[in-house]
Amino acid sequence: MSFEPDVLQGFVQRYLDTVAGGSADDVAALYAEDATLEDPVGGGEIHIGRQAIAGFYKVMEAAEIKTELLNFRAGGHEAAFVFAITVSGAMRIEPIEVMSFNGDGQITSMKAYWGPQNITQLS
Amino acid sequence: MSFEPDVLQGFVQRYLDTVAGGSADDVAALYAEDATLEDPVGGGEIHIGRQAIAGFYKVMEAAEIKTELLNFRAGGHEAAFVFAITVSGAMRIEPIEVMSFNGDGQITSMKAYWGPQNITQLS
Repeated sequence: MSFEPDVLQGFVQRYLDTVAGGSADDVAALYAEDATLEDPVGGGEIHIGRQAIAGFYKVMEAAEIKTELLNFRAGGHEAAFVFAITVSGAMRIEPIEVMSFNGDGQITSMKAYWGPQNITQLS
Repeated sequence: MSFEPDVLQGFVQRYLDTVAGGSADDVAALYAEDATLEDPVGGGEIHIGRQAIAGFYKVMEAAEIKTELLNFRAGGHEAAFVFAITVSGAMRIEPIEVMSFNGDGQITSMKAYWGPQNITQLS
């Protein structure tokens, strides 16, 4: 199974737009039912399944989130990308994320690589 | 198991330096005996084991390789990074790579995300 790079980039852009403008359930709906999410990688917690994933995004709903895709790479049914996320105008984080997708374009796994050294305080 | 970000970045820099200045066997020696390598991701081939990995790097030995780390993220015992590789002054590729490491600092898996759209012809 493989997607054209433009299609994969579309999936990623839709994800970033939904993180910025949608509800936690909207974001979780982009994931497969049995998807996994690790954010940050090495943080010791892997969220398994759409319900747990919705819980992960729930904490962001109170904040004003902006996202920007900075650098994108396609690979078969996977994507790797650098993006910026700005939280309530107060801090900016630039993770590298890796996602895999199923044939329906749903996210089956997401891993976000970032740490304190990738956070910039804005205010 | 987890490494400090600086330690992980050191592993990655050593890898990039060895790709640029070492032999295929030198690069393969940075991998664990049973490591896996997928480059490019989605290309349909996964190299398994140090001997197969040495074969993968063998094709680069005839070229003059330069590497530059552009963007680095740490995550537990994993790393994600953007780098540039210049081949004989003729082309420059900018992949995003993801690596995991064992407790000895050996690479246990490497995945490189890039495609034709990430190649710049230099001459």
